[in-house]
Amino acid sequence: MADNTAFPQVDLEHVFYPKSVAVLGTNRVAGTVPHDIFANILKDNFQGIVYPVSPKERSVAGVRAYKYVVDIPDPVDLAILVFPSTVCNLALEQCGQKGVKSAIIISAGFREIGPAGVKREEEIKEIAKKYNISFIGPNCLGVINTDPLSRLNASFARKMPQEGSIAFLSQSGALCTAVLDYAQAKHIGFSKFVSFGNKASISEIDLMRYLKNDPKTKVILIYLEEITDGAGLMNTAREIITETGKPVLILKSGRTREGAAAAASHTGSLAGSDEVCDAAFKQAGIIRCTTIEEMFNSAIALAYQPVPQGKRVAIITNAGGPGVLATDATIAQHLELAKFSAETTEIYKKTLPATANIKNPVDVIGDARADRYRVALGSALADPGVDGVFVILTPQSMTDIENIAREVCATIGKYNKPGYASFMGEQDVAVGINILQQQSIPHYILPESMCRAYASALFFREHRDQTVEQQTEFSGIDKPKAVKVIQDALAAGRKYLPEEESDIVLNAFGLPMLPSGLAHSSDEARKMAEDIGFPVVMKVVSDDIIHKFDVKGVLLDIRSAEAAGDAYDTILRNIAAAKPDAKIKGILIQKMVTRGEEVILGVKRDPSFGAVIMFGLGGLFVEVFKDVSFRVAPVGPRAAGGMIREIRAYSMLAGARGKKPRDIKSVEEAIQRLSLLALELPEIKELDINPLIVNDEGSGCYVADARIML
Amino acid sequence: MADNTAFPQVDLEHVFYPKSVAVLGTNRVAGTVPHDIFANILKDNFQGIVYPVSPKERSVAGVRAYKYVVDIPDPVDLAILVFPSTVCNLALEQCGQKGVKSAIIISAGFREIGPAGVKREEEIKEIAKKYNISFIGPNCLGVINTDPLSRLNASFARKMPQEGSIAFLSQSGALCTAVLDYAQAKHIGFSKFVSFGNKASISEIDLMRYLKNDPKTKVILIYLEEITDGAGLMNTAREIITETGKPVLILKSGRTREGAAAAASHTGSLAGSDEVCDAAFKQAGIIRCTTIEEMFNSAIALAYQPVPQGKRVAIITNAGGPGVLATDATIAQHLELAKFSAETTEIYKKTLPATANIKNPVDVIGDARADRYRVALGSALADPGVDGVFVILTPQSMTDIENIAREVCATIGKYNKPGYASFMGEQDVAVGINILQQQSIPHYILPESMCRAYASALFFREHRDQTVEQQTEFSGIDKPKAVKVIQDALAAGRKYLPEEESDIVLNAFGLPMLPSGLAHSSDEARKMAEDIGFPVVMKVVSDDIIHKFDVKGVLLDIRSAEAAGDAYDTILRNIAAAKPDAKIKGILIQKMVTRGEEVILGVKRDPSFGAVIMFGLGGLFVEVFKDVSFRVAPVGPRAAGGMIREIRAYSMLAGARGKKPRDIKSVEEAIQRLSLLALELPEIKELDINPLIVNDEGSGCYVADARIML
Repeated sequence: MADNTAFPQVDLEHVFYPKSVAVLGTNRVAGTVPHDIFANILKDNFQGIVYPVSPKERSVAGVRAYKYVVDIPDPVDLAILVFPSTVCNLALEQCGQKGVKSAIIISAGFREIGPAGVKREEEIKEIAKKYNISFIGPNCLGVINTDPLSRLNASFARKMPQEGSIAFLSQSGALCTAVLDYAQAKHIGFSKFVSFGNKASISEIDLMRYLKNDPKTKVILIYLEEITDGAGLMNTAREIITETGKPVLILKSGRTREGAAAAASHTGSLAGSDEVCDAAFKQAGIIRCTTIEEMFNSAIALAYQPVPQGKRVAIITNAGGPGVLATDATIAQHLELAKFSAETTEIYKKTLPATANIKNPVDVIGDARADRYRVALGSALADPGVDGVFVILTPQSMTDIENIAREVCATIGKYNKPGYASFMGEQDVAVGINILQQQSIPHYILPESMCRAYASALFFREHRDQTVEQQTEFSGIDKPKAVKVIQDALAAGRKYLPEEESDIVLNAFGLPMLPSGLAHSSDEARKMAEDIGFPVVMKVVSDDIIHKFDVKGVLLDIRSAEAAGDAYDTILRNIAAAKPDAKIKGILIQKMVTRGEEVILGVKRDPSFGAVIMFGLGGLFVEVFKDVSFRVAPVGPRAAGGMIREIRAYSMLAGARGKKPRDIKSVEEAIQRLSLLALELPEIKELDINPLIVNDEGSGCYVADARIML
Repeated sequence: MADNTAFPQVDLEHVFYPKSVAVLGTNRVAGTVPHDIFANILKDNFQGIVYPVSPKERSVAGVRAYKYVVDIPDPVDLAILVFPSTVCNLALEQCGQKGVKSAIIISAGFREIGPAGVKREEEIKEIAKKYNISFIGPNCLGVINTDPLSRLNASFARKMPQEGSIAFLSQSGALCTAVLDYAQAKHIGFSKFVSFGNKASISEIDLMRYLKNDPKTKVILIYLEEITDGAGLMNTAREIITETGKPVLILKSGRTREGAAAAASHTGSLAGSDEVCDAAFKQAGIIRCTTIEEMFNSAIALAYQPVPQGKRVAIITNAGGPGVLATDATIAQHLELAKFSAETTEIYKKTLPATANIKNPVDVIGDARADRYRVALGSALADPGVDGVFVILTPQSMTDIENIAREVCATIGKYNKPGYASFMGEQDVAVGINILQQQSIPHYILPESMCRAYASALFFREHRDQTVEQQTEFSGIDKPKAVKVIQDALAAGRKYLPEEESDIVLNAFGLPMLPSGLAHSSDEARKMAEDIGFPVVMKVVSDDIIHKFDVKGVLLDIRSAEAAGDAYDTILRNIAAAKPDAKIKGILIQKMVTRGEEVILGVKRDPSFGAVIMFGLGGLFVEVFKDVSFRVAPVGPRAAGGMIREIRAYSMLAGARGKKPRDIKSVEEAIQRLSLLALELPEIKELDINPLIVNDEGSGCYVADARIML
């Protein structure tokens, strides 16, 4: 990723809309990649000129061939390399000499095959830099642009997809072939279709930036195995979503440890934590999909229909059972069954048969024909209490599938609300499904998929309409103080900051610390404890002691000055016994907080997303239930509030079981300060505040213990 | 359900294999239910004789009609009623007079439409009882038997399904039409296909019992909206699974409150708790499905292939991306990636190209043809470390889909291990999918569905091979003592047993109680507390006081005889102040247990499944995380152990965080005793033991507080 910054401004216009294309390394053997790519461009009505380049052939597919790219008499906008990986460097070098600025390297045999391939990949990157060439690939299926202005099928896919408003970007080439096949059967069209392979030059982020401004693209889908620049991905997605209202859907594989290992073995990718990825996508408003089918289910909803304004849905069905299944699925997706207005109910009473169920889910009964669907569907869509409609059909003996499908399309088309359909079955309902698909009514085999797609669209709308969050400005941050502590530790070869040093770092960023002091004598301890106020905790401070409890270096719940003095002596005696050679800096005296809820805050570094802030309730909640939330830094006030509220044990802070609510505001501030600290102090590898004690509302919170690893 | 016990032995042989069938109420109008049912039987090559009965017509579909069923000159094995619901009673009465013993009542307009329909349904039940008729329906689509010996399509479905080994039973008629359509497209055949509607006479349990012994049926699928006899369903399923090795899959809708309401509005069903249903199905070994697609995905795996012997799967793919997705899905389903033997690895090294990935998931690379699939698949199936294989194909330009499909079928057929396939895409791969489906290799559009189907098959195998659990025999149970307490309370009009009475009931069933006694004076309190041992808890006992804490009627942590005497007086003073007219029976003195883990045990009555035992960890674990487990009584030792181990916080009892393990054995016994109590004392509506305090291993557990509602 960092490498890419050295590349010139990526010029994707020449990738998608080249006037002239050279295919380097093509041949005359139909059924091989080098041949098929050239043939695909030629046969799929490309609007520019395509030149075959082949050292051995005089012509390919009836077109005069050139020995080398430099031999082509005209300028070349885009070079497509299908040579074996071992000679791609030479071919690219020649492209540079020819003045080509954009390329697609189809050839495999690079980073994905191990050290020899890594070396090859570095070599072509060097050449590309030298000549200012940006390229797609290597190790990819190619690029397709369905725009009639270009009609470029620079891929070895079996077929050119139909035109549409969905862009698909994929790190896996082979998956593209399955996706094209799947999509064609469902009449799903694409605007741009890109297999970007090893993304050695042009990344998914470059492609997203291009698609942001592509008027042909309404929805962006990405299959990713490796996230190299998580922050860039998030920022780009957020920009696209909020500025242009285009949804971004990502299928990120390698979710499990084993899956990540499988991904690594075939693309050499480095996987971050999947929980962090989940959280980061949500934060950016990216719809995360778990299967290809789920991705397209959501994509067609977003591409074909208005986004829903709310979660109140009406279900129209000609069968009770599927109505029940759809209701279950609706609720499972946190949607609601709409309540119909008196007017709607009146219309249903008048026009539907007496045996129909006129409550939501509306059962128009097995003998319903198109007219009954029209009334039920139209009235629901017209009802101000309904945000969207699900139409279900089962192929009963009296069901006029074709006409009902037409009526469903016509009726949904009249309203600016989303309407989706599920014609259940397969062969008999095919005639209806075909009509729905051709008229861009999202269709789902299962009511369950339909509800999930609606929920995704709703998730998108909420994020699209969110204002950009301002980061809180904190004054009085003493970064140099924190840096000095860290630098000193690093200079001394230490990878761990003891508590008193951690406290300085946290304090420098304004995290709420407990009153404390370092005593060097029992007298000082007595006085200091008195000043701090009882009860206090006393702990030995020594670079030589990490686990203070183990050497009896900590005494709790000291309730008088006298006891503090005694504790000072006791701790020294304990250390003398357990670790006689430890150099003691003093005894830390700290206010002891006995009440309040214990929460945990943490910082970790994710290889994909960078600084990540973690929040959870203390102890078992984290250990047993993994009840924690994550956000990628920077974390603003809204995100901080969100991460507190989304844990399942939130009620413990909000005032469950008749308790007073805790000071959540102060935790929100602590999270934001920690986020700032994490960004400003990249030397910190890991940080745990465990626990942060949260007092009742208005009474703040305190760092009771913290641990920093460098 | 209870009603059904009064019915004669259900004779389903005459429903599925009738020699003669009369269709009562048929007509000449094609496209209507009364006509189509007769026509379906006639045209689908029924092996017996079918008689049209129509008061108005002389013939139907070219066959001589009879005015009334009694006019038919020959015996009638099965009557099918398609008259309007208002005259079904008369038609059934005539069937009785004619001596017909089996019927299918297609007509709607009964219980599902409300009070008038309920009355009609009761009426036909009475008539059926009078004449010993058992019947399917009313309000159903009918019955199909594909067995060539019968070939009966007594339904108004659009088509007769192909023959196969899957039986499908459905409470929803309309869903059947969608299922038939879906199944035909996928070449899925059925043995028996039954829409059982309101199950006023023949229930899903009767049908299951029949299918248990049906040699044509290998797998049983059920769509249910209402469980009337949960215990019967569980026992029947368990019998089928363990005795005949036929899997039972149920799609139970109405999972959410709203879904249950929707189900109630169209069949008048009464829903129990969905969590209990989940637990009960698992307990019985029933595979619970959440969608129709998931149900058939599992069904074809079970019907077509051997059940897996373990969870170690090999993935064979021609594309890296889908391999990663399949790996994620494998792990998500708690399966494992198999590790190949040295032999297998050697074969792969020798025969697969250098660029192939020979570790699991095995990537045979995009240009793989049938021979490479054969080697990879065959060696994996032959490897003793592999329990099953997933074959993935993407339609790349060089992919010979048809031959690979044939090779996959042939190779899987050679081994007694399950092999499933996912040919990803739709149109291009259709030729391959078709071959797989016709040769009974389970095929899935998504690798994710494939993994889930495998996991279901594994779940089935584990339950099939489980021995029937023996219930523990407990001696010294004093049921009469418990009954007396309950009867006295009921006689006094009380719906609530106070603690001291609850204690007697629990004690009578041998649940471990804390040492305690009832003191009537401060002197007695002193002595009694001394005998029990300190610390003790003291609580007022009075029928007039339910919330003892509110009136300061409880004092904790009393540590000496003197303090016990004082506490006695204090409590009396507190009550005199807060509730001067309360009649006090005495002060309960109870051993106070301060250590140990707090768990909760409960009994509730589910309308579908009866006595249900609940277990969970105390406090927040239940409230915040709903971390509880359920079992339907009787709960044997294995089930009791299972319910303790399946909660997420189990590690808290097993000895997490360096603590000693708790006495889990004693909790297992307590659960079993509670299960016995729940079955023996049906007057108890609800019982909570909260908490049961569990000591360290070997030191038992104690009921610290309990509450019984009658």
